[in-house]
Order: sequence, then structure tokens, then C-alpha cells
Amino acid sequence: MCRIAAYTGPEIPLENIVVRPSHSLLEQSQHASEAKLAVNGDGFGISWYGPNGDLGLYRDVLPAWADDNLINLCRMVRSHHFIAHIRASTVGETSRTNCHPFTHGRWSFCHNGQIPHFRAIRRQMLNALPDALFEVRRGTTDSEMIFLTLLANGLNDDPQAAIVATLEQIGASQPGSPTKWSSAFSDGETLYAFRHASTGPAPTLYVSGVLDNGGRAVASEPLCGVADRWTEIPQDTICRVSAEGFTMQPLQIAKAA
Amino acid sequence: MCRIAAYTGPEIPLENIVVRPSHSLLEQSQHASEAKLAVNGDGFGISWYGPNGDLGLYRDVLPAWADDNLINLCRMVRSHHFIAHIRASTVGETSRTNCHPFTHGRWSFCHNGQIPHFRAIRRQMLNALPDALFEVRRGTTDSEMIFLTLLANGLNDDPQAAIVATLEQIGASQPGSPTKWSSAFSDGETLYAFRHASTGPAPTLYVSGVLDNGGRAVASEPLCGVADRWTEIPQDTICRVSAEGFTMQPLQIAKAA
Amino acid sequence: MCRIAAYTGPEIPLENIVVRPSHSLLEQSQHASEAKLAVNGDGFGISWYGPNGDLGLYRDVLPAWADDNLINLCRMVRSHHFIAHIRASTVGETSRTNCHPFTHGRWSFCHNGQIPHFRAIRRQMLNALPDALFEVRRGTTDSEMIFLTLLANGLNDDPQAAIVATLEQIGASQPGSPTKWSSAFSDGETLYAFRHASTGPAPTLYVSGVLDNGGRAVASEPLCGVADRWTEIPQDTICRVSAEGFTMQPLQIAKAA
Amino acid sequence: MCRIAAYTGPEIPLENIVVRPSHSLLEQSQHASEAKLAVNGDGFGISWYGPNGDLGLYRDVLPAWADDNLINLCRMVRSHHFIAHIRASTVGETSRTNCHPFTHGRWSFCHNGQIPHFRAIRRQMLNALPDALFEVRRGTTDSEMIFLTLLANGLNDDPQAAIVATLEQIGASQPGSPTKWSSAFSDGETLYAFRHASTGPAPTLYVSGVLDNGGRAVASEPLCGVADRWTEIPQDTICRVSAEGFTMQPLQIAKAA
Repeated sequence: MCRIAAYTGPEIPLENIVVRPSHSLLEQSQHASEAKLAVNGDGFGISWYGPNGDLGLYRDVLPAWADDNLINLCRMVRSHHFIAHIRASTVGETSRTNCHPFTHGRWSFCHNGQIPHFRAIRRQMLNALPDALFEVRRGTTDSEMIFLTLLANGLNDDPQAAIVATLEQIGASQPGSPTKWSSAFSDGETLYAFRHASTGPAPTLYVSGVLDNGGRAVASEPLCGVADRWTEIPQDTICRVSAEGFTMQPLQIAKAA
Repeated sequence: MCRIAAYTGPEIPLENIVVRPSHSLLEQSQHASEAKLAVNGDGFGISWYGPNGDLGLYRDVLPAWADDNLINLCRMVRSHHFIAHIRASTVGETSRTNCHPFTHGRWSFCHNGQIPHFRAIRRQMLNALPDALFEVRRGTTDSEMIFLTLLANGLNDDPQAAIVATLEQIGASQPGSPTKWSSAFSDGETLYAFRHASTGPAPTLYVSGVLDNGGRAVASEPLCGVADRWTEIPQDTICRVSAEGFTMQPLQIAKAA
Repeated sequence: MCRIAAYTGPEIPLENIVVRPSHSLLEQSQHASEAKLAVNGDGFGISWYGPNGDLGLYRDVLPAWADDNLINLCRMVRSHHFIAHIRASTVGETSRTNCHPFTHGRWSFCHNGQIPHFRAIRRQMLNALPDALFEVRRGTTDSEMIFLTLLANGLNDDPQAAIVATLEQIGASQPGSPTKWSSAFSDGETLYAFRHASTGPAPTLYVSGVLDNGGRAVASEPLCGVADRWTEIPQDTICRVSAEGFTMQPLQIAKAA
Repeated sequence: MCRIAAYTGPEIPLENIVVRPSHSLLEQSQHASEAKLAVNGDGFGISWYGPNGDLGLYRDVLPAWADDNLINLCRMVRSHHFIAHIRASTVGETSRTNCHPFTHGRWSFCHNGQIPHFRAIRRQMLNALPDALFEVRRGTTDSEMIFLTLLANGLNDDPQAAIVATLEQIGASQPGSPTKWSSAFSDGETLYAFRHASTGPAPTLYVSGVLDNGGRAVASEPLCGVADRWTEIPQDTICRVSAEGFTMQPLQIAKAA
């Protein structure tokens, strides 16, 4: 189980989400409260968009709490749109290439969850990728594979359809495996959040009200004590967040028989 | 708070202490049960003695659970005498030079505890070191400073006197600070364990009965489920462990007024 | 271009090959003399066999010259059969999973060279792997793919036929690309060395006479000043080295038309 | 021997100095042409100033050429004033705390050179530091010690006098040792460059004319092919660079008798 925090709105230092809140992502790296594991120490990453839509990426393998570079970057770098992730490893070694977010073109993607039968379907998922996306793969995680499959399934054109198709592709392969999937991802303009579980609850995801910073955040756990300003994103519902507000749209997911 | 496991006896693979027991040091890196923090993810290290008394050292900054090299080494390397440590940082960056054990000559030393007023006395402790030991210092931890001070205070000749002198040197400097100190250290022949707290309990240390491996272990927490074969080392008592057995000897520590 | 050093014979400390010779592998990491690049700073690795055939592996991403752990291990660990490698990256990130040697079962393999058209044939090489070997892949290098393809082509049963089949599989895919391949690999009993280039010279490989240590070594460059005790391994010739001596056997490689 | 590149002028992406020039700092990490060693692979670092004078710092131990994070940061982060450094280690382990630049308050400092007798004078240099600067020390390099000594000698008030005092402090200790010192440092407003050698030439430092970017750079080697726009900084001369231009002022250094 990993932890996610993302933001869209007026340009702010990354630290306003990642470091400064009382229950910041950094705090959650040692004291997560809504995850099976309280500790997320298997690396971290941040993707952020610049004023011209340029996409930056910083990932490293140390626990977030141990990395001075991370603190410095979050203090100095400002962005209007970014996604941060701390990892608790389930599949794949602790390496930079297995840390989230994963990026491709203008997209960045991070994930919290698991496909228990990933080993069984990895090869067919890889085979299903078009050459251009096959080439992009660098690591060994299920998360990166989900991202590439979303892109193959038309994330650029219709994120909602891409999610449905990807879930069916995963689920169809082995119906009985309790897949869990919580993701935040972005094309640099809209911040998307989505949760799904084939059985039971998916890892939590919340969307904030308007923050003091003026924008909105999506996070695995509310970033500050006053929980009432945060709305839990329902399962099987795609949440689109922009500076103006957010929308929730239920998806029709075909449950595996 | 860190966790310690050490062994002396017939030559065994390091993994028999570090990896294989049900509550091994590796397990304690994620699920310590007698420490304030359940997680010890700020690096690890192992010192081991070869058949001729040669002293090996392996330290790295990743959490122990994330390091394939550690697993491989513990499976392949055999030793009759070794000390392993996993770190939960309180003072000093996460760097190899701040990971335990620290070694010098035939001695290796690891530590669990803290000197709350270390910042105030660091300079005078450093000044008190003879040149040869001043030169040896590589990191920024209180633990390495305690080790060098022990050496300066005659660890080679009389470990018991060196401990007493070092504790007085630390405590005399700032009487009210609740120093805690649990250590395992060795000259390659005798394995020493010692616990002290200026107030309240020091971090735990246990010495085992004769293990299935044929030797004895010292550990922050018993390495396997059957706790009754482990003896808690009392505070202010130096425990000397060899293949033949162990002795406990109370130390006379002058409490700061 | 990388550098390789391997040994078979009476048990010796790894440092006798990796660190101590005047032109040791460690020295070659900064001052290689027969490679395009004098520096091989993109990680290193060692695989070594224990007395029962157990296979150890240590790989890390720092330059070999900067890693105290490597020096310590090479001083303490003894083996009768081992392969060491320092990497100068051409394909694939600097990560532990991209460092050589690669291991599987009792085999370990390291490589120096390149498949210039690797990107074009990576997918079909991956598709040609049986499931069990597909699962083993962890990194993104051409070298690991060559190793897995050798295994798929029967390395266990007939190394010579496996090499021929693998070379044809690579070469057949894109005849005009100047593939270079120098490898040392082992099943724990026989040390194999092989060089091939589709055009021009392949990276050098030498086999030593009987060393002061009593065994023999294979290396990209002779490990000590007296070059006359080293025999250059001809291209397209498989060299089998054991404690007793070595044999050279030319391979019939079908050149791409 | 290390390599340095610094910039002051209109805000630009860091990559315009560190990555993009034909003989960029990144290029010099593998192919330095005016240094004893062509390779500077023992870590790197960048300090940069934000619009409000905030000081960012990014340092890591991998060779600069192997770090994707560095490329990403240099592409995304913009600054009007920054100093970058690639390290070839002479004193001190490869650790983040031994990588340059070193920072304190508004100052950042990086160094290329050596004090051959550093080991002999380290302790007295450390003793000469006021407590506040003693506390700041994190690593084991002569470079960090020079920086702290400069601060102790009044860098804030009179950089020129601080350099003279520091050089005398170093030189007075052991007259015959061939100290070499080339530095770039900054208080966030003025970029300083200085070279000194007790005998023979100090490592090179150049100051550029007005770059296409509109500012000026200081570098160990000219960053692009057209060398004639770069002025070599004479030894024992302090060069002050600002967006408006640069000044050269000879220092009176008392040579050790």
C-alpha cells in the first residue's frame, strides 16, 4: 500500500502539500493512518508541470523522510499542478524505475493497490501493448504496466473508457483475484482520481475543498486535521479535479463473473 | 531506536540470525515489538570476524528489507562471531558512515539509544579524543562518538572501566538529560552487551540460551517465538558472552547529581 | 564497454583478482587500457560460488572505486570460482538490476559488448523466451536478454550450441548491425569465455596461465604487468577454463549474409 | 580534481549551463580536457537561488551522467544565480555530505583542489571554528572545512580578507605542502571566483563574456567551443561576477617562507 498526494490550482511550492501540512505526505511516510502498513519507505517520487506544460520528474529509492534533496526541492520548486507518491513495495524491487509517478508524454500516473494475479497476466499485458508503449517500459511493477495499458486503451482520448477497458482487461484474465486500484493521474490540465476494488474496499482517496493555497488536492488521507473539508471519492467513480472544482462520474465496471 | 542482533559460537551463515528466525533482525526492521518505533528503515550494517580474526564490514543506507545484497551476503557468508544492526535515525543523516557497526582495529561496536544533549557535548567529546582516534571519525552520530570515547577510555584494556568512564564523561556534562544506551560490541573473542539509562528503562537487550546453531545470541528482541530461552540483561550490568556461556557483572555507575 | 575478471581454482579471497593485482579489475575501473573508454563507473557486480555450489551475488550502482563495501567483501569472502564485472553503460539505466553478473539457477553470466540494433529486436527476443525465463527478467539491458536467450537455447545442455543459436537469433534479425559480444559465464564448475564480432574486433578477453594463487583467470585485460602469461582468446572460439587447464574450441558462426 | 560551472544573469533553466553547451559540465563529467583526470564521477551538486534569495541544494553520489533526476531538474528548474559541481574524490568518502556545493545561510561554496597536508591540520582548523560553524560541519572533506573557515574569517563582511586569512591559516600550518585551491562561491548576489596555488598552477577557472542567455558564467573549462569569449582568471586574483560584468582584483597572499 502506498500513499498519494496531488494538487491543482494556483502555483505553490511543492512543500505546501508534501511537507508542511500536519498530516503531509512526508508525515504519512512514517505514520499513515488509513493504510495496512503505517510505513511507506520504499522510495518516492514527484511529477510536476511547469508553466508551459513541461513535465518534471524526481524519484529516488530512499525513504522520503531520509532524503534532504526531497525537502530542498519541495521548498524551492513551485508548480500549479503536481502528483507525489510514497511507495510501500508489493511487486518489484526498490529502484528508481519502479518508483511512481510514471510519465509518458504529458501524462503522469501514480498508483496504490495491487493485482494479486499480476504475475499470471504480466506477459499477456505486455504483449498487448503497441510497440511505442512497449519501448517505454523501464521497471517491473504492475503499476507501470497499468499506466501503459491505460495509454494503449486510449487514455489520451477518453480516460473513462480507458479505465473501463483496462479494468476489464485485468479482471477478465483471472476473475477471482481481489484486484485493488487507487490512482491519481494527470495530463497536466485535469487531475484525475479513481478507485476500484473487485471485492471489498479499495485504498482510500479524498478530494479536498478549496485549500488555503487556493487550489484543491487529492490524497490517500486528508492532509490536515480538519477532515470535514475532504470528500471521500466513492469506488468506481472517476473524479476530475481542476482549479474550478471537481466532478464525480460513476463508471460502469463489468464485474468478473 | 535501533535494533541489534549478535552471535558467537560455531561458524554459521549470517542468515541464521539476521534473516531466518521468525522474529529475525530483518523481521524487526519492519515489525519491531519492543521499540517505540516499529520500523527501523534508516540503513543497516553487519560486522563479522573471519577465522583469523579479520574483521569484515558491510553497511548500506537502504532499509534492510529492500536490499537484495544483504540477503545474498547473509546466505553466503559464514562467521563464528558477528554483530548486525538496523537503524532508526535520531542523530545524523542516513549515510553509510552513520550506519552501525563502527569498527576500529579488532573492535566493532553498535548502539541503540540516545544522548539527548549530544549537540551540547559533541565538541568537548571530540576534543577529548587523542589524535589517532580523532582521525578515525567519519560520520556525525553520537554512537560513533561513544565508540571512539570508549576506545580513548581504555576499551582495549578494561571494557568495564571504559564504560564507566565514558558514561561519567557523558553524564557529567549535563546531568539532567535522560541518556539511554544499549550496546553490543566485540573484540572478536568476547561479545559484550550493556544497557544503561540515566532515568527510566534503557532499550532492551537479551542474551539467548544455547541456540540450535550451537552458539549464543544477543538481541534487542528475542529472535524466535519461545521467549523463555532468552534472558533479559539487567541495566547497568555488563554481559560477556562466549561460546561457553555468559556472565553478568553489575557496574557501579555514578548517577549524575 | 565494460571490463570482466573471473577465476577458477583453489579457494582465494576475491580481492586477489578484483583488488590486489597491479592492473586489477578495480584499477581498470579508472584506467582501462584496452577499451574505448578508460572509465567503467556505472556499477559493478560479483557472483561467487560457495563450497556446495551455492551462488552469491553482490551488485551495486556506485563506481567500483567508491564502494567501501566492495573492498571489504573482496577481502573477507573466499571462493574457488567467481566472476566480477564493472560496467560502462550503453543500454539501460544505472540500477542494480542492470548490473552484471546476471544469475539463474547455477548459472552466472556477464557481458561486454553491444547489439546496436537491440531496440529493434528486443520485443521479438522477449517473445521468444519461455514463460519461466520471461519471469526472470528484471532489468532493461541487452546483456540480460542475451543471458536469458542463451538459457532458452539450451545453455544447460550444450553451451556451444546455445551460443551459436543465440548469435544467429540476434544476427538474423538485422544483418548489417555490427554486433560485439565478449562474455564470461559459468555453471559453477566450468568457466566459459567467448568473443564474437559481426565485423571488426570484439572486446578483448584473455585467459591466464597458472597464477601464483594456483588457479586461472579470464579477464578483459591481463591483471598484472607480465602480459606474456596471458593468452588472448581468439574470436569465435569458446574457451573452457577449469583448475586443470583450458581448452579452445572454434565455433562455426553463420555470418549474416 | 573536480569541475565547476556557475552562472549569474537573467533567469534561465539550469540545463543551459549544466547540460546543453557542447562542453557542458555534464560533458566534462566524462571528458574533462583541462584536468588531470578526464572523469569526475564521485557525485555532483547544484545550489541555486530563487527569486527571493532562497537557496536550494541538490546533491547526489552517482556520477552526474547516470542521474536522470539531475537531467530532469536542470530542465525544469530556472534560476538567475547558481553554482554546479562535479566531484573527483581526493579526500573523503563518496557521500552526499561530501558533495559540493556546501551551503550556510545565504552562502554557497564549491571547490576544486587540495590541501595535501589536510590530515595534519584538520584538527586545528576544526578547533579554530566558532561553535556555530563547528555545528554546521557534516562531512569529512577539506573543501567543507575551507568553507567553514572562510565563514569564520569574515566571509560575510569582507570576502577578500577572508580568503587571505584562510590561505594564511592553511599555509602557515605546513609551509612546504603544495596547496591548490580553485573556488566559486556566492552570497546570492555576487558570484566570486578565486584561484591560488602555493607552487605551480592552480586548477583553471574562466569567466565568460555575455552569453546568449544574457548572463555570465564561471567554469573550470569553457562550456562551448569558442574559447575566445572566455577569460582565464589569473591566480591570486579574486573575480567578482554580476549580471553587469566582472572585476578582477589581485590579492596579496603572503607566501609561506
